[in-house]
Amino acid sequence: MKTDVAIIGAGPSGLFLANLLHAEGIGVTVIERQSKEHVLSRIRAGVLEVITTDLLDRLGLSERKDQEGLEHGGFYLARDEHLIHIDLKRLTGKCVTVYGQTEVERDLIDLAEKEGVNIVWSASDVALHDVDGAAPSVSFTSDGTEQTLTAKFIAGCDGYHGPSRQAIPAACGAGFERVYPFGWLGILADVAPCNDELIYASHTNGFALASMRSPSRSRYYLQVPLDEDINAWSDDRIWDELAVRLGAEVAANMECGPSIEKSIAPLRSFVFEPMRYGNLFLAGDAAHIVPPTGAKGLNLAASDVTYLSDALIGYFRNGNEAGLKAYSEKALARVWKSERFSWYLTNLMHRFPDSGAFEKRMQDAELDYIASSEAAQKVIAENYIGLPL
Amino acid sequence: MKTDVAIIGAGPSGLFLANLLHAEGIGVTVIERQSKEHVLSRIRAGVLEVITTDLLDRLGLSERKDQEGLEHGGFYLARDEHLIHIDLKRLTGKCVTVYGQTEVERDLIDLAEKEGVNIVWSASDVALHDVDGAAPSVSFTSDGTEQTLTAKFIAGCDGYHGPSRQAIPAACGAGFERVYPFGWLGILADVAPCNDELIYASHTNGFALASMRSPSRSRYYLQVPLDEDINAWSDDRIWDELAVRLGAEVAANMECGPSIEKSIAPLRSFVFEPMRYGNLFLAGDAAHIVPPTGAKGLNLAASDVTYLSDALIGYFRNGNEAGLKAYSEKALARVWKSERFSWYLTNLMHRFPDSGAFEKRMQDAELDYIASSEAAQKVIAENYIGLPL
Repeated sequence: MKTDVAIIGAGPSGLFLANLLHAEGIGVTVIERQSKEHVLSRIRAGVLEVITTDLLDRLGLSERKDQEGLEHGGFYLARDEHLIHIDLKRLTGKCVTVYGQTEVERDLIDLAEKEGVNIVWSASDVALHDVDGAAPSVSFTSDGTEQTLTAKFIAGCDGYHGPSRQAIPAACGAGFERVYPFGWLGILADVAPCNDELIYASHTNGFALASMRSPSRSRYYLQVPLDEDINAWSDDRIWDELAVRLGAEVAANMECGPSIEKSIAPLRSFVFEPMRYGNLFLAGDAAHIVPPTGAKGLNLAASDVTYLSDALIGYFRNGNEAGLKAYSEKALARVWKSERFSWYLTNLMHRFPDSGAFEKRMQDAELDYIASSEAAQKVIAENYIGLPL
Repeated sequence: MKTDVAIIGAGPSGLFLANLLHAEGIGVTVIERQSKEHVLSRIRAGVLEVITTDLLDRLGLSERKDQEGLEHGGFYLARDEHLIHIDLKRLTGKCVTVYGQTEVERDLIDLAEKEGVNIVWSASDVALHDVDGAAPSVSFTSDGTEQTLTAKFIAGCDGYHGPSRQAIPAACGAGFERVYPFGWLGILADVAPCNDELIYASHTNGFALASMRSPSRSRYYLQVPLDEDINAWSDDRIWDELAVRLGAEVAANMECGPSIEKSIAPLRSFVFEPMRYGNLFLAGDAAHIVPPTGAKGLNLAASDVTYLSDALIGYFRNGNEAGLKAYSEKALARVWKSERFSWYLTNLMHRFPDSGAFEKRMQDAELDYIASSEAAQKVIAENYIGLPL
């Protein structure tokens, strides 16, 4: 098997890239470890920046997103019953769109299948070879058969745990990491959201987030210790604790109901530099992870893919390597700023077990300052809607 | 001896307050542990917010400040040769004034002496009594004689180490503190400044600050380890290290010369709550300390004194206690926001011995973001010129 670009991973990065390149007549094959059903059952992020909805529009995937997506002109920061409105629309002229990553995936898979993009699902033993040589290739097992795909370039879109980043020798890159001393317990339920806009709440008991996927499906989160047992959290206990942390006024509008899904995820900041090694290009979670505070993960994948698809199209159209050479630096400049914002918002809104009374007062003072300052609100708003490409 | 308000400490807080109250016909006596000569020889801060120059103007002390003070419409943040201009004037419509705290002190002492304000210099064994009772008093020894001053109120303007805050029982207040793992080595020299505006520089070797007191007197600082020996720093070594940290372009304009003064000071954030106990009111460093990054110390003293003098004048004019009751909360709201800014700027610009590669990247990303964002620059500018009273 031979193609122009071998894409490892059929998450949003891989599928956005595959569809964008295929539309330009560039040969692509996507190799995914999981089954299609598994990929479509993963519950992930749900707040899209304009750069991400732009990519969907560019692929002709506006219809369902425009119909089912919820345009949000703002969100709230809350501290002990006091709500601060961040008016995205007024402060930046832009909105974000609430449309689940699972829906984005479905749209991208539907398009890929309609357009005949080659996707290998349930591939095992995926391994990269000769990534800095003349004949890069990817070997894998599919339907019990060992196969090898050679390609001009490999796009590593296989997430934090995938084999792509591991294929880069230790001496040729470096990871920067911060692991947070807590996790997020998430609950998904078919109940109406408690508020039209998201609420990020700082409370003595810990952080809470009220969000949604649709007018009838809500997604809530609670900060919990890293070693927390999910079995200790009945649905009732989760709703009770959410009511405490979100405050009485918000809780009065909170509809409770049985969970469709609940789980605990750790929080991590991670960046790998550079994002290119030989003919291998990393995009999305394969190169960087953000804590979910601020909803930057999927949107960073979209900015990586915007840069990388432009670079690859430039190369295949007219042999221009400038875009490929600039890719890592260009992508990382935006990555680090989004990492900064996610880290800042995480630090601002969570209780840290090892930080003292002074640090807590700094969080309170910052929230008081944000409540009183248009400029401070604008800083948060412009980061939330996404910094320019 | 008897007076309306006993003021402990003849630093800026005490002298501003004494002059403001005396001008309204309220009886004051200032008790200072040091000699006048010692007070006037202390090298301190030098950047005045508008609220501080307003206080000087209100006391008729504009002349020398307008003549000798330098109006600064901006300052620079620097990272490894790259300068970011924070254009205070354009972003906020306001400037700061570079005018040494020593000069402010001199003006305030001259006025007090001219107006016949009672100041006891070189008082020893200063102690407060019955501060929450009906007859508060201050005992002290002056010229070998033990004396007692009774007063309606006591203003504790005696700095971090003074007896006022210590007179508050442990159960009636609480301190919040952050001690930084480094100090500032300061050098004062009669050389022209290297730049018209201040430069706060973040460098791999540590923080540096280029500032000035006048067109012919410069003040520079270097971040050094807490246990650094000042004797290890010859003038030459200081100038050499400043040249490295400020970068070649700035260093090209740096005039070197013999030091008039050099010393190492630790950095601390500290807030004591509440700022009132019975008939004792704390103001300035007696209640809070900021690290010098951002030049908030003297300016916070000025805001405290603005609130406290208004409250005391309200009381003595018409017996209205509302201002006195509101003082602590009102002052602390502004204190915490200035503490936040000083802590933030300290965290942003210094090397922390115990922080890792990820945290360093967060500092870099923040500076890159500030360089690219008008809103981020405005946040820094509005804090630097001083938040509204």
